[in-house]
Amino acid sequence: MRILVINPNSSAEMTAAIATELMVVKRADCHLDVVNPVGGPISIESAYDESRAVSEMLKLVQRAPGQGYDAVVIACFSDPGLDAARELVDIPVVGIQEASMYLAASLGSFFGVLTTLERRVPVRRRYAESLGLGGKMVSTPVLNIPVADTVGSLDRMKATALAKGQEAMAEGAEVLILGCAGLGDWSHQLQEELGIPIINPNAAGLKLAESLVDLGLSHSKFRSFQQPRVVLPLD
Amino acid sequence: MRILVINPNSSAEMTAAIATELMVVKRADCHLDVVNPVGGPISIESAYDESRAVSEMLKLVQRAPGQGYDAVVIACFSDPGLDAARELVDIPVVGIQEASMYLAASLGSFFGVLTTLERRVPVRRRYAESLGLGGKMVSTPVLNIPVADTVGSLDRMKATALAKGQEAMAEGAEVLILGCAGLGDWSHQLQEELGIPIINPNAAGLKLAESLVDLGLSHSKFRSFQQPRVVLPLD
Amino acid sequence: MRILVINPNSSAEMTAAIATELMVVKRADCHLDVVNPVGGPISIESAYDESRAVSEMLKLVQRAPGQGYDAVVIACFSDPGLDAARELVDIPVVGIQEASMYLAASLGSFFGVLTTLERRVPVRRRYAESLGLGGKMVSTPVLNIPVADTVGSLDRMKATALAKGQEAMAEGAEVLILGCAGLGDWSHQLQEELGIPIINPNAAGLKLAESLVDLGLSHSKFRSFQQPRVVLPLD
Amino acid sequence: MRILVINPNSSAEMTAAIATELMVVKRADCHLDVVNPVGGPISIESAYDESRAVSEMLKLVQRAPGQGYDAVVIACFSDPGLDAARELVDIPVVGIQEASMYLAASLGSFFGVLTTLERRVPVRRRYAESLGLGGKMVSTPVLNIPVADTVGSLDRMKATALAKGQEAMAEGAEVLILGCAGLGDWSHQLQEELGIPIINPNAAGLKLAESLVDLGLSHSKFRSFQQPRVVLPLD
Amino acid sequence: MRILVINPNSSAEMTAAIATELMVVKRADCHLDVVNPVGGPISIESAYDESRAVSEMLKLVQRAPGQGYDAVVIACFSDPGLDAARELVDIPVVGIQEASMYLAASLGSFFGVLTTLERRVPVRRRYAESLGLGGKMVSTPVLNIPVADTVGSLDRMKATALAKGQEAMAEGAEVLILGCAGLGDWSHQLQEELGIPIINPNAAGLKLAESLVDLGLSHSKFRSFQQPRVVLPLD
Amino acid sequence: MRILVINPNSSAEMTAAIATELMVVKRADCHLDVVNPVGGPISIESAYDESRAVSEMLKLVQRAPGQGYDAVVIACFSDPGLDAARELVDIPVVGIQEASMYLAASLGSFFGVLTTLERRVPVRRRYAESLGLGGKMVSTPVLNIPVADTVGSLDRMKATALAKGQEAMAEGAEVLILGCAGLGDWSHQLQEELGIPIINPNAAGLKLAESLVDLGLSHSKFRSFQQPRVVLPLD
Repeated sequence: MRILVINPNSSAEMTAAIATELMVVKRADCHLDVVNPVGGPISIESAYDESRAVSEMLKLVQRAPGQGYDAVVIACFSDPGLDAARELVDIPVVGIQEASMYLAASLGSFFGVLTTLERRVPVRRRYAESLGLGGKMVSTPVLNIPVADTVGSLDRMKATALAKGQEAMAEGAEVLILGCAGLGDWSHQLQEELGIPIINPNAAGLKLAESLVDLGLSHSKFRSFQQPRVVLPLD
Repeated sequence: MRILVINPNSSAEMTAAIATELMVVKRADCHLDVVNPVGGPISIESAYDESRAVSEMLKLVQRAPGQGYDAVVIACFSDPGLDAARELVDIPVVGIQEASMYLAASLGSFFGVLTTLERRVPVRRRYAESLGLGGKMVSTPVLNIPVADTVGSLDRMKATALAKGQEAMAEGAEVLILGCAGLGDWSHQLQEELGIPIINPNAAGLKLAESLVDLGLSHSKFRSFQQPRVVLPLD
Repeated sequence: MRILVINPNSSAEMTAAIATELMVVKRADCHLDVVNPVGGPISIESAYDESRAVSEMLKLVQRAPGQGYDAVVIACFSDPGLDAARELVDIPVVGIQEASMYLAASLGSFFGVLTTLERRVPVRRRYAESLGLGGKMVSTPVLNIPVADTVGSLDRMKATALAKGQEAMAEGAEVLILGCAGLGDWSHQLQEELGIPIINPNAAGLKLAESLVDLGLSHSKFRSFQQPRVVLPLD
Repeated sequence: MRILVINPNSSAEMTAAIATELMVVKRADCHLDVVNPVGGPISIESAYDESRAVSEMLKLVQRAPGQGYDAVVIACFSDPGLDAARELVDIPVVGIQEASMYLAASLGSFFGVLTTLERRVPVRRRYAESLGLGGKMVSTPVLNIPVADTVGSLDRMKATALAKGQEAMAEGAEVLILGCAGLGDWSHQLQEELGIPIINPNAAGLKLAESLVDLGLSHSKFRSFQQPRVVLPLD
Repeated sequence: MRILVINPNSSAEMTAAIATELMVVKRADCHLDVVNPVGGPISIESAYDESRAVSEMLKLVQRAPGQGYDAVVIACFSDPGLDAARELVDIPVVGIQEASMYLAASLGSFFGVLTTLERRVPVRRRYAESLGLGGKMVSTPVLNIPVADTVGSLDRMKATALAKGQEAMAEGAEVLILGCAGLGDWSHQLQEELGIPIINPNAAGLKLAESLVDLGLSHSKFRSFQQPRVVLPLD
Repeated sequence: MRILVINPNSSAEMTAAIATELMVVKRADCHLDVVNPVGGPISIESAYDESRAVSEMLKLVQRAPGQGYDAVVIACFSDPGLDAARELVDIPVVGIQEASMYLAASLGSFFGVLTTLERRVPVRRRYAESLGLGGKMVSTPVLNIPVADTVGSLDRMKATALAKGQEAMAEGAEVLILGCAGLGDWSHQLQEELGIPIINPNAAGLKLAESLVDLGLSHSKFRSFQQPRVVLPLD
């Protein structure tokens, strides 16, 4: 199967980091491409950033079926443009925040989300509530690091992450999600140190995409994700 | 006070209809401009349409404070780009769906939303849930009319609207929202016929905007709607 | 338009303070009367106090339409007798707690309510839940001041209020409601000091009343607020 | 033990009917008095009726401890003045709607409430939601009978009640509450006919009151039901 | 009436302690037997322990009607096998956690549950949510004592319990449930010390059982608790 | 990887049917064994049936790690004994109802569950609510077929299933779960006929198990699924 992973920001460094992570966890029979659109924001930390990233990202999604991809993964934890992407194509489009949160909810009674910036805490909570998981997300510890700095700063921030993870456990989190596509690389090490499941959202998204392809399932085109009446042709 | 109403689709006909409606309900001391961006979709009926409309709409929002506006109203019932718009400016930005739903919830125990297309029913429900009003929205009768046709078809559709309103009342709706910016003109007539409050979302949005200006209130810039780190300069 | 604001307790001092506040924020074309019933409790701090205040308050409401009022505002944060008042008359009756909470919910993701007494904390929470906003009210800091003392003690309590507001922000509140009709005067100063929107409930209630009159909307008389079968004649 | 049952409307006929019912179900060691205040509304069908009934009812509650009662039951399904009554006295005060709904929720997954008038349907739903039982109350079939007529019309309405009960079962109700103090007499017969538990709210309230006395439990005086600062002396 | 109380673990010491407690609170006309199955786990602290206890417990339940019992109480706070027990017999089967939580919710706005072990905290929360009471359970202070040690350690743990109760009150609990069948003996003393209602779950369960017998009510056999198609004969 | 699928009832026919289905959908590198315990109920249609099945099923789970399995799937839609199974072992244990419901929730806004017997409708609803998905499960159409008859009756019931699926869509379901381990074989055909995603719960469970093994994730042993203090040795 062929899966397209789109990092919707324009950081080639983050795209490369995601590719490196996912090559390890992907199935042998899965051909994987990790790309990013040109010209979007260097990181996505606000609804405004999301709005800037979505147009070009949607073109990559729109092209994917014609290029032979069986599924698409949007590798930004905010799941920007997810509904629009699902409307555009018949193949499954996976959002890594949605995939991570439902996975976390099935691995423990309560979970936490390690969050990059304080401003994104309410956004994470509202998203969990939209999934029905508001009562299960009990902690959103803040790392206080700009998204663009995550990839290069993992080592330096280890101590902070460990402390924040322990804080989340004290608040009742039995599972922890690394709430940024740039944090994924940490998951195994942090899992060992904290002794609870740590979810790498990129990997969770990829596995859900692989599963959907195997199951012959995609998003419902009845009601919510119906094809738009007018779709702009690709250039 | 000066208020900018943005119809985010590119239908000048709908823009004109909204302006006509609002001129009647606006306060004497309120200067009102109703505009639409150039080049967006002719109507907004899907998340994809929303994504197409948002970029240009946000530029109009971004310019508004410099042009002396005291508040902005986004006059599309889907409230496209609302969070991003609020991040961009310090003046209040009102979404007409949000304004209508909270107003409806304060006029009766349960309300309904007259909906243009079946595909938007789940989107309306999810929005009500995000506002905390999922338990109060009891009915979403479908008119089955494309958004672009609303403005010109009001007369022809009266009978349908009346029947759908009665259906909503039988399901427990004590208040009805006209769930499309192009349906607003109907409100007084339908209110008389059905005998329950009918909310014109454009008018509800405008009144909330006027109130916020009087109250010296705007959206919180702490956390959720904090200014984005990088904002593209206006051309 | 003519609006009647009823302070349901019997404190003429609080009535005067509310009038002073509201004269500043009311529209030029709005004639405002602020009154209180004779013989009720000097302050409303319990359900028992509410029960004592309601009879006389309802008579004022009942008289309002005949006196030419277009709307009524109940200026006590507990919204005593609100449902009964809405049943009695066809003009809109606004409760300031309801108006403030829905307004707060539309200005940020989460809000707090500055509360006079610890005993009213559960009452505020239950009210927010009844509006659907239980998940959005994240903080109810307690000032620990009897309601009757609020009006005269604002200056003295400034430091406490500021500290409690910061506590609410640390708990995630992006907006703060001054949870007592006697606290309203503080709003602008506190807003400047805390940097988040501060809602004066009296003003929020008045603006909602003005808006409803302009919109030709009132509470639904279908089901919840239907006219009672028997209404006692006014003396 | 001595229990005071207060029918808060002024219908001596209903008071007598409640007394007759309860004499059968009360424990041998329970001395029971069933009374009604003088001068209130003949039936309670609206929030306005509740407001008219509460003052006199609260005086009966206030006197109860001094008269040697161990508990009070408010025998009107709307639970009027319940919070105020609990604030006034240290002995338990039971509301029959609250008692019935929690009992229903423990006898099946979902329950229905047989309702006298359509206008009370939203009130019942809001009450269930305030108890946390909004998701468990699945049906509110309407008998369409004024409260004052219930006591004398039971025989005549049997067929309607049976049909409405079956309607509730088809909607998923596994338990049915007779949602009016005047309907209680029906419970055993309807239970036999429908084959599901039928709750007589007066009886449910009495049994809860007896249990609380045995358990040495009363409503918490910490926070919600704290004694009011000022209580009017009894005449 | 005859009531069978089953302690589903195999600790005869705990069975005796429960019997001693309940003899004091039972009604004079209630014949009470307190038993435990042979061969189950010595205490129930996990879902695995519950699964070990259920088979033998269900046989005791199945025999109860033939032995002339009018109701059964399962005296383990985890309510193990409650649904299955209700399916098996027509007489009421009461779970003490369910009985305690609904009782607590009717004595105050918010309650806490004194919990034996940290691992049971999420289980308690999930149970409260299943009853609709997730929003009302605000505190689950942990005693950190194995269930098997509760009965013999009450005196030694008094200071801890008092401190934990005060902690719960600071978190907003107006009522406290002793969250283990082995803690019941404490209730009156703790109630006096803390000044809020303390619920002994065994006693709460017994009183509900007595009430149900008086009311002629049992669990609905329509849908949820319908008789299983095949029931193994008793040996 | 090696995955153990346990059909917890004693129907070898159903076990064989599940194995046949799953061999098609499993990954090439996944070694799969599908087994059932000896001596349990022939089908699981009640909580009592669940209690009969769990003991033997848990022994199979307990043995799995020592036999080299990397994950376990419980292939009964009621997810019997899931919490206990997760406590017993460190490898992931997947419940097919949980896996199906979270998958359904990520493929559309609302889903339905095709249910075998009316008595299981409330059980399915309560389960969805425990997952946070109560608001997303909008339909539970009943096939009215005993679980034991599902495997042999698929062809005969096609017309019913199709009609029930259309009924679910009319109620707003955008995705449909086949709510019984014996119904899985239908999924592709029904998906083609209805035009919405149809989830085979066995397959959904297997794919989640495979994903968890790849991700190095298992259920949290912190709090909810901590190892029981005492575990009986295997015979």
